[in-house]
Amino acid sequence: MIKKVLIANRGEIAVRIIRACRELDIETVAVYSEADRDSLHVRLADEAICIGPTPSNKSYLNVTNIMSTATLTEVDAIHPGYGFLAENADFAEICAACNITFIGPSPQAINQMGTKDVARETMAKAGVPIVPGSKGIVANIDAGLSVAEEIGYPVIIKATAGGGGKGIRVARTPEELRKGMNITQQEAATAFGNPGVYIEKYIEDFRHVEIQVLADNHGNVIHLGERDCSIQRRLQKLLEETPSPAISEKTRKEMGTAAVSAAKAVDYSGAGTVEFIYDHNNGNFYFMEMNTRIQVEHPVTEMVTGIDLIKEQIRVASGEILSVTQEDVTFNGWSIECRINAENPAKKFMPSPGKITNYLAPGGLGIRVDSAAYPGYVISPFYDSMVAKVITHGATRAEAIAKMKRALEEFEVEGVETTIPFHLRLLNHETFISGDFNTKFLELYDVMSVKL
Amino acid sequence: MIKKVLIANRGEIAVRIIRACRELDIETVAVYSEADRDSLHVRLADEAICIGPTPSNKSYLNVTNIMSTATLTEVDAIHPGYGFLAENADFAEICAACNITFIGPSPQAINQMGTKDVARETMAKAGVPIVPGSKGIVANIDAGLSVAEEIGYPVIIKATAGGGGKGIRVARTPEELRKGMNITQQEAATAFGNPGVYIEKYIEDFRHVEIQVLADNHGNVIHLGERDCSIQRRLQKLLEETPSPAISEKTRKEMGTAAVSAAKAVDYSGAGTVEFIYDHNNGNFYFMEMNTRIQVEHPVTEMVTGIDLIKEQIRVASGEILSVTQEDVTFNGWSIECRINAENPAKKFMPSPGKITNYLAPGGLGIRVDSAAYPGYVISPFYDSMVAKVITHGATRAEAIAKMKRALEEFEVEGVETTIPFHLRLLNHETFISGDFNTKFLELYDVMSVKL
Repeated sequence: MIKKVLIANRGEIAVRIIRACRELDIETVAVYSEADRDSLHVRLADEAICIGPTPSNKSYLNVTNIMSTATLTEVDAIHPGYGFLAENADFAEICAACNITFIGPSPQAINQMGTKDVARETMAKAGVPIVPGSKGIVANIDAGLSVAEEIGYPVIIKATAGGGGKGIRVARTPEELRKGMNITQQEAATAFGNPGVYIEKYIEDFRHVEIQVLADNHGNVIHLGERDCSIQRRLQKLLEETPSPAISEKTRKEMGTAAVSAAKAVDYSGAGTVEFIYDHNNGNFYFMEMNTRIQVEHPVTEMVTGIDLIKEQIRVASGEILSVTQEDVTFNGWSIECRINAENPAKKFMPSPGKITNYLAPGGLGIRVDSAAYPGYVISPFYDSMVAKVITHGATRAEAIAKMKRALEEFEVEGVETTIPFHLRLLNHETFISGDFNTKFLELYDVMSVKL
Repeated sequence: MIKKVLIANRGEIAVRIIRACRELDIETVAVYSEADRDSLHVRLADEAICIGPTPSNKSYLNVTNIMSTATLTEVDAIHPGYGFLAENADFAEICAACNITFIGPSPQAINQMGTKDVARETMAKAGVPIVPGSKGIVANIDAGLSVAEEIGYPVIIKATAGGGGKGIRVARTPEELRKGMNITQQEAATAFGNPGVYIEKYIEDFRHVEIQVLADNHGNVIHLGERDCSIQRRLQKLLEETPSPAISEKTRKEMGTAAVSAAKAVDYSGAGTVEFIYDHNNGNFYFMEMNTRIQVEHPVTEMVTGIDLIKEQIRVASGEILSVTQEDVTFNGWSIECRINAENPAKKFMPSPGKITNYLAPGGLGIRVDSAAYPGYVISPFYDSMVAKVITHGATRAEAIAKMKRALEEFEVEGVETTIPFHLRLLNHETFISGDFNTKFLELYDVMSVKL
């Protein structure tokens, strides 16, 4: 078993990992930037080492300093958390080269899933549903028109070398496709030096439904059900829940099986998430991407399954077999997570960094708080603005919602603006309560106008 | 359904009840003494009314003021919490007379269980095991000797009118019994005006194991398993857990059945606890008493069953049937509660009232905190010294213990001394870890000498 872990992260996820380590009697080493000197993860770890100035490339992304610290403190493993170096295959390789266990999947698995086209192809081969579209690059306009006719409009034209929302264009008619392909090819040639485009069916209204998987190094791969993360603002998840109010038992099973196939296809190891586009208009689902790390919203899965995902990651990285089989996994009740950020929801979620002058987290039955905040803590403008994740667990969705409303009403955070007022309104929004919505929810509704 | 509840209590249990009400969409009225003006229960309730000066008989025991407040605020029910008026049959009767629902059992049930001899007799009739002893008053020395011979020494001589540890004497030989009966009869005649004594088997080493029951007004009575409260200091419970590490599955079932019989025998309604003496030397158990109210340690039962006991109390008082049947009840994992008090465990648990200058409760998976404390809160010397109940839930006892150690290590309470150092040592004590101990644990071991 791993005996000492360096946590190459900050904030609530660093605290979360330290907690799991302490419960497993594993020593912990925190690293921190100059801005994070007074952070909770620094206080809670057995050792804490400053790894550089505030900009992330000088500290939390500074592989040299992190590896020096790991060597100096003689850890046997590094947990990358999420973000920063969590999906950096090079970092995972450097860990291996230094004989330090990277708590995560192999560099190969990270790479296979991190490269959009490779992942799409790998999934297709593994029998995981992918969004209908062209097989690779579309040779010319006629080929494009023929693909579009086959899959039906609207379609989306994507530059194969594109990314980050660039080199993408929607076409609703053959005419739009002709124009769109031309423009996208030209743009892509200029921007990425590669004019290749491919075509996919454009799904306008969908739910974001993802499956948590766990795999060990002994051939066992299981899934722990889904999380519905359809409440998003500019691709940023704000509220997640499990189970999904939208999918049937049949879809749940099929999605779980598909996610296990996806993980097996890349010899996955540890905790990962297979994200799907769920087309609630026809019940189909398609592979979106796989996140090869622990996710922010992992607690809701823990609440309904009782399985500690961080502990499982550590066990798997230690070479142990998973502590549960697929048959052992049971789902109990409903869980919701709200991400409380230091942002002003009345002013377009403008960040509100500053000192938290008063802090009192909610408590009681069915309430979990994962946070690195405390009275006097300063939310730095240099990092994400998360104050806390509030997670509730109830017998039903209605009870989980009622508990969340109660918890957020009693949550005291002063000194910074927070998204609590937004979440309280969201929880009182009749469309949210109905469970019938998709990822466009926040574009369609002005949540802040809900009367409390 | 009840629409508005007055909570005739303070501290964490008032907060606990307000939370349940909020989740059920029930309005709440807090009452408070002059010392409790800044309390959390006052802040969290929809309305709050001061009911008098600090001494409890002028406020939290002031039935006139409480009933006036109830009438003024037009509540339909009163929740008494624990302590104060919770087991006061007269108060329950006054509520009924005022057409206000008392959230608890009938005055008759409170009385039947509150009077020691009546309870013993009622239980015997209902087939609930009681400690072997005389049938009522022992007529003379010879009758006493004959009872003692039948049940075996040591025995305990109890004045029928005694109580609070007075009028009690242990006898280990016939000679001691002769002397003891004489002295106890004389003392009882003088002190209580009633010389009657009865004799019971004296069980020296036992575990305190209690069963949570729930009953509605439609004839349904169920039990929710046991709690082991053997870690006590001067009859004050310090740590409680479920399941009990000591009892067998067979005993668990028998005790559950006995507790249901006990509740049925008094037409019980709501949540109650049947306490048993468990003789771990021979596996027998005996009725000790029934607490006709919610108990401090109720959360551990909630953690393993997922059933919200306060909500069930409210549902039952509203005339609903229990939300679960006996067959629905399942037990999941292990839960431990530590009562964190503002006392100095290094100085014989001397109370340490004062202002909490820094307060940060532990969080994360499997941690629940029930507390009325906050940064700046003043622990008053006028009331009990509870700071918080920390409750953990894990798959096994070892995990629940590991979680509690982790939680207490990260719990920050400054400004007052607390019992956290005691609990951390207790959790590291090998006899505690073994699970093999009884209510004399704290007399036998110097927990504070444990090295951390």
